[in-house]
Amino acid sequence: MATPAVYVAEDSDFSIYNLPYGVFETTSLDKRLGVAIGDYVLDLREAAHQGFLSSLDSQYFQQSDFNDIMQLDRKAWKLLRSDIQDVVYGKTSEWLKSNRGVLSKLFIPMHQVSMHLPAKIGDYTDFYSSKEHATNVGTIFRGPDNALNPNWVHLPVGYHGRSSSIVVSGQDIRRPCGQLKGNQDPYYGPSQALDFELEMAFFVGQGNSLFESIPVKAARDYIFGLVLMNDWSARDIQRWEYVPLGPFGAKNFATSISPWIVPLEALEPFQVPAPVQEPKVLDYLEQGSDRNTFDIHLSVSLQSTRMQKPQVICQSNFRYLYWTMEQQIAHHTVTGCNLRPGDLLASGTISGPDATSFGSMLELSWGGTKPLQLTETQEQRVYLQDGDQVTMHGYCQKENIRIGFGQCQGKILPAKPLAA
Amino acid sequence: MATPAVYVAEDSDFSIYNLPYGVFETTSLDKRLGVAIGDYVLDLREAAHQGFLSSLDSQYFQQSDFNDIMQLDRKAWKLLRSDIQDVVYGKTSEWLKSNRGVLSKLFIPMHQVSMHLPAKIGDYTDFYSSKEHATNVGTIFRGPDNALNPNWVHLPVGYHGRSSSIVVSGQDIRRPCGQLKGNQDPYYGPSQALDFELEMAFFVGQGNSLFESIPVKAARDYIFGLVLMNDWSARDIQRWEYVPLGPFGAKNFATSISPWIVPLEALEPFQVPAPVQEPKVLDYLEQGSDRNTFDIHLSVSLQSTRMQKPQVICQSNFRYLYWTMEQQIAHHTVTGCNLRPGDLLASGTISGPDATSFGSMLELSWGGTKPLQLTETQEQRVYLQDGDQVTMHGYCQKENIRIGFGQCQGKILPAKPLAA
Repeated sequence: MATPAVYVAEDSDFSIYNLPYGVFETTSLDKRLGVAIGDYVLDLREAAHQGFLSSLDSQYFQQSDFNDIMQLDRKAWKLLRSDIQDVVYGKTSEWLKSNRGVLSKLFIPMHQVSMHLPAKIGDYTDFYSSKEHATNVGTIFRGPDNALNPNWVHLPVGYHGRSSSIVVSGQDIRRPCGQLKGNQDPYYGPSQALDFELEMAFFVGQGNSLFESIPVKAARDYIFGLVLMNDWSARDIQRWEYVPLGPFGAKNFATSISPWIVPLEALEPFQVPAPVQEPKVLDYLEQGSDRNTFDIHLSVSLQSTRMQKPQVICQSNFRYLYWTMEQQIAHHTVTGCNLRPGDLLASGTISGPDATSFGSMLELSWGGTKPLQLTETQEQRVYLQDGDQVTMHGYCQKENIRIGFGQCQGKILPAKPLAA
Repeated sequence: MATPAVYVAEDSDFSIYNLPYGVFETTSLDKRLGVAIGDYVLDLREAAHQGFLSSLDSQYFQQSDFNDIMQLDRKAWKLLRSDIQDVVYGKTSEWLKSNRGVLSKLFIPMHQVSMHLPAKIGDYTDFYSSKEHATNVGTIFRGPDNALNPNWVHLPVGYHGRSSSIVVSGQDIRRPCGQLKGNQDPYYGPSQALDFELEMAFFVGQGNSLFESIPVKAARDYIFGLVLMNDWSARDIQRWEYVPLGPFGAKNFATSISPWIVPLEALEPFQVPAPVQEPKVLDYLEQGSDRNTFDIHLSVSLQSTRMQKPQVICQSNFRYLYWTMEQQIAHHTVTGCNLRPGDLLASGTISGPDATSFGSMLELSWGGTKPLQLTETQEQRVYLQDGDQVTMHGYCQKENIRIGFGQCQGKILPAKPLAA
């Protein structure tokens, strides 16, 4: 394989095997589509302008989000990826090396860009697909005998989330106020139980028509690519409000995602078998013997205002999830519900089998009974404090092939109560 | 008051006092903004082209939805309404009467138009604001001692709904399939408990910024206008799936709304005091002494394939709702959640105090124990059958002033199970 057009460090998240999609701007370039490579961003509008992306009409690269490209099919996405590979490390990249003027217009140093949401997100759905997470939460709230609800092993439980408040990594998060309830009357105030949830989410590519379902075996073709997600949650608001219609204000104030969508194509080498399902699922959820998921290492780190360095507080893996993305799609659409290009479907908190792999403060502190120790400063945490910064990472590694998701980061700002 | 430019029947829903907004097309005109008047639709693009809508730039009327106009404020909406009043029954209408060529370009017979969703709906939220409905459902599912959950009287319970499957009145509704559970193992099949829910919904006008709340006393200015809504619900899917995260597939397959948005200005003469709230609500929900709602008569009728005429099966009223729209907005945003122009916030099923005012089959048939009698054909109904057509109406009346919402109608198509 040829040397890429720009330098790519061996441990870069954005290797030549990755080529994730994002929307960026700079002080001189307006919002546009790009691809991350090493410490650079390939400007797709400029690449199209130079005639390097011939598989798609240049109109697609005049957009400021990926919705139109998502609306295409996997064949078109592969052709586009092939064009991009050519620019980054193929014949075109060789030509670029002796045409530095063009090269420097195409590849923009990453520190010069600011990132935006990669798509207009129509609907956002959040699943609850980690058996360990659902069991932990059930045990904390209802005790071990009754931890998992009866429906949980039969269908991927999910709910509709709030799409307006999805923000891109780097945006600070304001601590929410809301209605809380202790042992006395309900009262208004800032949440005292602000939590993160380690999740991943995928963007829907082509959608389906209303009243048509997507069969589970065709579902993979509807997945455009994946991002990291932090589903910020106010546990005290949630506890009081959620019966009987589910979480609302506890989660509608912000959800962060990483800015770079890793295409499904890049993840294919990292397929692993999904967890065995017992009891057997109904036919409409049955994927057969090649029921795969992806081996994506995930971590969460926390840094308080007093700490010099972040501390890793959770290490988990996407492969732990009991329900696959294909099953989520099949269940979501079995009623005839239509998915649209740019819709976001999230995994729910991804917890693993042991206590270091739990994907939320609720679980890590076991409902507040085991405060987390921040070793550098000897601070303790049950939930997040103002100024705490939460950073999620994700990557796949196999021999010397590495692809990463960059980061999903957010810092807690103090609450801003309503004026009296 | 002058005679309007076109004939308006005395009992028309679309009187000169109404002037609701909708998006229409005809075989010769592409999708555009309009206003209903009598049996006609005023073409706002043409009216702007003629120079009659000078309060707004003509660019607004080149759009095919109301989102840009919603984004303005009440002052701008009032000026636009004033321009439209002038075309319909003011000085301009007088001029039009002697310029029939222009008049016939402006006013299109309603039978020639087909209607579309009036806005791009970003997020759709459904509340649960009828105390009678929540009490009925609680009693049917859990018995009378425990009917209302403890949080219900303290906050307007709500959940995020699915916006992709919101359709406009007239669209047939496919019976959903999904995962069902009787006394045995769960199974896949068409819902046997398909229901309607009589609701109203309002479109958000200008939105709020993320992390800023809307105070309850300022909330009315964020309401653009109201429509009728049928929140189709599959009770058997719902019963099995909804713990602990709320309804999902039971409601994500379709939600119908009436096509004409009645502006808040038109409803102002029909204000009535909202129900007294006891216990007292928290300050962020407290509206003070002028806590008003609107007196909107609502009805649901059902027509089976064998019936010649629809039968009215429910008569209710918007004023029964315990929580006001302003309280819904304040609670929705108290966490800092941002509303966007074109977001849709629905009331939840509107049931009244007596059995003829219950807004769903679940309540009308009291959980299936009291089948509904269709008198014309001697048929019975517990839930909806294939071919049943459900039509909702709503109107306000005061002396000889009448404004109506038109209708929200949908017919049930047979299920379409997944290919084996």
